[in-house]
Amino acid sequence: MISFMNDYSECAHPRIMKMLMEANCEQNAGYGEDIHSEKAREYIKEHLQNKDVDIHFIPGGTQTNLLVISSFLRPHQCVIAAATGHINVHETGAIEATGHKVIGIPVKDGKLTPDAVRQALDYHTDEHMVQPKMVYISDTTEVGTVYTKAELNALHDICRKNELLLYMDGARLASALTSRENDMELNDIAELTDVFYIGGTKNGALLGEALVICNQDLKEDFRYLMKQRGAMMAKGFVIGMQFEALFQDRLFYELGQYANQRAEKIADTLITKGYSFYMPPCSNQLFPILSKEKITQLSEKYQFIVMDEIDEDHNVIRLVTSWATTKESVEELCRDL
Amino acid sequence: MISFMNDYSECAHPRIMKMLMEANCEQNAGYGEDIHSEKAREYIKEHLQNKDVDIHFIPGGTQTNLLVISSFLRPHQCVIAAATGHINVHETGAIEATGHKVIGIPVKDGKLTPDAVRQALDYHTDEHMVQPKMVYISDTTEVGTVYTKAELNALHDICRKNELLLYMDGARLASALTSRENDMELNDIAELTDVFYIGGTKNGALLGEALVICNQDLKEDFRYLMKQRGAMMAKGFVIGMQFEALFQDRLFYELGQYANQRAEKIADTLITKGYSFYMPPCSNQLFPILSKEKITQLSEKYQFIVMDEIDEDHNVIRLVTSWATTKESVEELCRDL
Amino acid sequence: MISFMNDYSECAHPRIMKMLMEANCEQNAGYGEDIHSEKAREYIKEHLQNKDVDIHFIPGGTQTNLLVISSFLRPHQCVIAAATGHINVHETGAIEATGHKVIGIPVKDGKLTPDAVRQALDYHTDEHMVQPKMVYISDTTEVGTVYTKAELNALHDICRKNELLLYMDGARLASALTSRENDMELNDIAELTDVFYIGGTKNGALLGEALVICNQDLKEDFRYLMKQRGAMMAKGFVIGMQFEALFQDRLFYELGQYANQRAEKIADTLITKGYSFYMPPCSNQLFPILSKEKITQLSEKYQFIVMDEIDEDHNVIRLVTSWATTKESVEELCRDL
Amino acid sequence: MISFMNDYSECAHPRIMKMLMEANCEQNAGYGEDIHSEKAREYIKEHLQNKDVDIHFIPGGTQTNLLVISSFLRPHQCVIAAATGHINVHETGAIEATGHKVIGIPVKDGKLTPDAVRQALDYHTDEHMVQPKMVYISDTTEVGTVYTKAELNALHDICRKNELLLYMDGARLASALTSRENDMELNDIAELTDVFYIGGTKNGALLGEALVICNQDLKEDFRYLMKQRGAMMAKGFVIGMQFEALFQDRLFYELGQYANQRAEKIADTLITKGYSFYMPPCSNQLFPILSKEKITQLSEKYQFIVMDEIDEDHNVIRLVTSWATTKESVEELCRDL
Repeated sequence: MISFMNDYSECAHPRIMKMLMEANCEQNAGYGEDIHSEKAREYIKEHLQNKDVDIHFIPGGTQTNLLVISSFLRPHQCVIAAATGHINVHETGAIEATGHKVIGIPVKDGKLTPDAVRQALDYHTDEHMVQPKMVYISDTTEVGTVYTKAELNALHDICRKNELLLYMDGARLASALTSRENDMELNDIAELTDVFYIGGTKNGALLGEALVICNQDLKEDFRYLMKQRGAMMAKGFVIGMQFEALFQDRLFYELGQYANQRAEKIADTLITKGYSFYMPPCSNQLFPILSKEKITQLSEKYQFIVMDEIDEDHNVIRLVTSWATTKESVEELCRDL
Repeated sequence: MISFMNDYSECAHPRIMKMLMEANCEQNAGYGEDIHSEKAREYIKEHLQNKDVDIHFIPGGTQTNLLVISSFLRPHQCVIAAATGHINVHETGAIEATGHKVIGIPVKDGKLTPDAVRQALDYHTDEHMVQPKMVYISDTTEVGTVYTKAELNALHDICRKNELLLYMDGARLASALTSRENDMELNDIAELTDVFYIGGTKNGALLGEALVICNQDLKEDFRYLMKQRGAMMAKGFVIGMQFEALFQDRLFYELGQYANQRAEKIADTLITKGYSFYMPPCSNQLFPILSKEKITQLSEKYQFIVMDEIDEDHNVIRLVTSWATTKESVEELCRDL
Repeated sequence: MISFMNDYSECAHPRIMKMLMEANCEQNAGYGEDIHSEKAREYIKEHLQNKDVDIHFIPGGTQTNLLVISSFLRPHQCVIAAATGHINVHETGAIEATGHKVIGIPVKDGKLTPDAVRQALDYHTDEHMVQPKMVYISDTTEVGTVYTKAELNALHDICRKNELLLYMDGARLASALTSRENDMELNDIAELTDVFYIGGTKNGALLGEALVICNQDLKEDFRYLMKQRGAMMAKGFVIGMQFEALFQDRLFYELGQYANQRAEKIADTLITKGYSFYMPPCSNQLFPILSKEKITQLSEKYQFIVMDEIDEDHNVIRLVTSWATTKESVEELCRDL
Repeated sequence: MISFMNDYSECAHPRIMKMLMEANCEQNAGYGEDIHSEKAREYIKEHLQNKDVDIHFIPGGTQTNLLVISSFLRPHQCVIAAATGHINVHETGAIEATGHKVIGIPVKDGKLTPDAVRQALDYHTDEHMVQPKMVYISDTTEVGTVYTKAELNALHDICRKNELLLYMDGARLASALTSRENDMELNDIAELTDVFYIGGTKNGALLGEALVICNQDLKEDFRYLMKQRGAMMAKGFVIGMQFEALFQDRLFYELGQYANQRAEKIADTLITKGYSFYMPPCSNQLFPILSKEKITQLSEKYQFIVMDEIDEDHNVIRLVTSWATTKESVEELCRDL
């Protein structure tokens, strides 16, 4: 079976594993205060062209989300997200477990808009309702779409005007920043959000996300909060080394681009063959609509997720590529489509 | 500088790294439902001589502790621990953050006794006070001591009689089970506790702990709870593979024993030289009492933690060995003592 | 100004105040373990024709809701409610603050249906999502509608089949049980739900709600949970005495019926005059649609809430009657309509 | 039986009941935004000689404590209290249920000292431990002692120097301020603390506490937080009226003084008869040491709490007086001692 299930099926990119192997017997300080984590922070800051951010390494995405949201909101405050947002449906109530409501607003393409934010603000008007204080977005979104700079700017503006924090979940930020739809650099993200994270798990690392706190007011005591939520690894350097490998050169972008190119090849084939898409293809997640017969046939050889039924005969499926998707697998799939 | 700071200064034991390297490009199922995690579970069950337990892999110790305690207690229930217990002082209120009080009982050697448990039970008598429902112990303890089978049996008994759950934090279980003070096997732990974890981070893994749920009543829906606390890794197989390496043969025990032997060599030297100890040496953590002058002198060449002051001229220090502590480092230290 | 704002504008019904005055200098046991609370429990059990329930007195409705939901759910479990449900929008995230997600399902008349419950169940299918475990309904609903026995039976059935707890918020249960749409007795509620509360605050008491736990499995340790949430009053007898007054005869029903009759008079006038309603009138809350001109005119003399805009010229308003609404006020309003 | 069990055995002082009766049929705004609550706030501010505080009315003491502590601390911060502090032992983990650790420091007379605070600060030094951020004291304390102005000043100073908030639980503040040991006025409390509450429940009210927020930084959004914890009563005016009655003249102090005088009479008798005390008598709670024989004998006629055993033959007992303790009861008890 060839898997197009997700982008976290393999261990780590060889250059990341090499970094771990070479440093394997070095003695490092614990809890993220080691030299490798420090180097990784420096490299990321160079990519950001910004020295004035705090960077913390955290094992996983759900943990990063619950940590960020619970650290920066007071008890009566809530977070606004697209109804399809990862925190709204796919984290088993992790945010609510820390005490905060998620306001999920239906959107058509996974992207939150100023109008959607406005809708939440207009509805929550007094002390009998939760107080919106943060906006959560993900780039790429859960349905594979990508924010443009204009869109992010507009969200930034409505957040500033309404004293809302803007938080970007960048689990798939590498794919977003190397998408043909993208017109942003990493430093744009840092300028337009209060806090965001750069995903490692879904872009070639064994595990790990790099949280970037841009807003000065949010920096204080963050290591206490990490420790409390179990997000401060004893061997923090294990994540630090991986981000060192990803950002000491442009490996982070190369892996994102490679995944996107594999997806693009599949998308082009699908378009050529006349398939339609649930969402326009532009990142490493594709959502084509296939006949059930075709789906059954492909399932014998490939792994992927079958999603919503479109009509009696058709379903959306999700195909995901990664740094580890081979050209051969893609070619084979293209032939079979 | 040679570090005796802790047992989590290096990446991973070569045999663990080898396992990861060999499996590096395999496609695995996500979220701990992969073949390597399954094999690791099977190997551990064989070591336990018990097929009837549930095993879950979790990134770190604090996360395991907060997950276990918050999953198995109702809101009004609390956990009893030694005052020195990790959850009581060194997890930044992680347990309280999930809503539960920790009752810390002063004990003399890091080990909780039936008397200490009884004291907590006798004090908490009605609905105006929290209800004790779980007993937390760690083996080895935070001060390097080790439970005997008789001691664990006695705790098991008082727990059964009072409907308390018994939970063992096994962050350093490898060192405990290979200590000369130990008279238990892994299956004794499984028989005498309701739930315990086998530490990987401090015994040669990059990261990861194996949680073993022995009590049938505690098994239901545990994966939901893991996910909610951010403890379910997308690449769960990264931890699974490491426990596969630790338990497919006896590597887990070998590493614990190796660390203990290095510590024993240091302890023997200290005893020979007439040093006294804050706690009797029996595991990979040593707590000798040194003159401040000697401490200053050693600090130029070695890293370790200086702890409580004993008198004007003396302090306790903590020396920790691990699978990665070289014989040369130990010999050098012994010469310098 | 004459207020039709709500049903909690005045202190307490004279017969309740009389009870408090007469018992004023008696010495009572604290924390709800007094004779008056005991009598009140006995009276309610007689009305329920069921001795096998536990009854607790709690100061307010939001507190009762957060206490019930947080006491009976495990951390990963959630509650299903109508999108208009009080817990979903008007309790400032009180439920989420205890760690649980509220799944709000859009419904057309404030009443949750088996189909709505089914929709929530079908969507939440695995451990990456919260687990539905409780259904929350209110009777009367937040929009003044009333459940029939058939409707409650149907909810009871789907709950039983899916191991969901059924919880009824009875803040306005007196109005519901004396509505002309109602075909249930108090004992029907006790038979068909796992837990419900009988509202005092909105039916003539100074404060207080009587929580009735019908399901045996939910009874254990409830007083601990009350105390922990600040819901166990030192002077519990103050609430106990009021429920004694409400249930030693049929005062509870008389007050609900009186409020309904005042509302009915207004509704009849509105119907006669050709006004339409946002929701069909059947309880002490009316939701007529008035021209903005009429609303402005009435606002000079009456207090009420202006709700959603229907079109450019019309809004829904909410008129609420209570045990304290005078016949004169109603007649005056009817003349002015 | 005559009860010396507590100071919350009777409904309310007649002048408070009179206020409720007279206003019984007035229509009031809900949620504490009524005229009576506003008047009560004005009266209290006059007593405080300070217009620049926010005052909120809350049903009970545990609820006030959990609301204050959870509102003003970030998740990783904790509260320091005397080990005997109400929040540490007698609120069923209410504070921990909101996510915060209580650091209980043993003290000899129920009063927290700068040394005790210092001890907690010195122990909690880094991000692996909770961060002390608030100091909780109660006046009178749980063992009936009273703070002097010098003592409160000293606590104020150490709090300012260490950026700690100072919170006073004034459940029995009336007794404290009218104690012969007291040298403070209400305005001293407001100047020296960041937030405190004035107890109504234990000083003649049916229920209710008046929370006074003195620190400007703590005022924002407090009504949201009240609502979320179920502490905002629909009929907030019921508490407002009672504080109006307590503070429109000096009833608040009169009731405290009356209770103290009754206790003083008993204490004088005990001293005369040669009894010793566990704590020196100075408020409405007395802790004399009696022989077990005497305790048994008194128990036939009086209700009180038997506390710690002093030796084989003696126990401490707690005797509590209140506004409702009759002179006859006291005389009878004195005769029987």
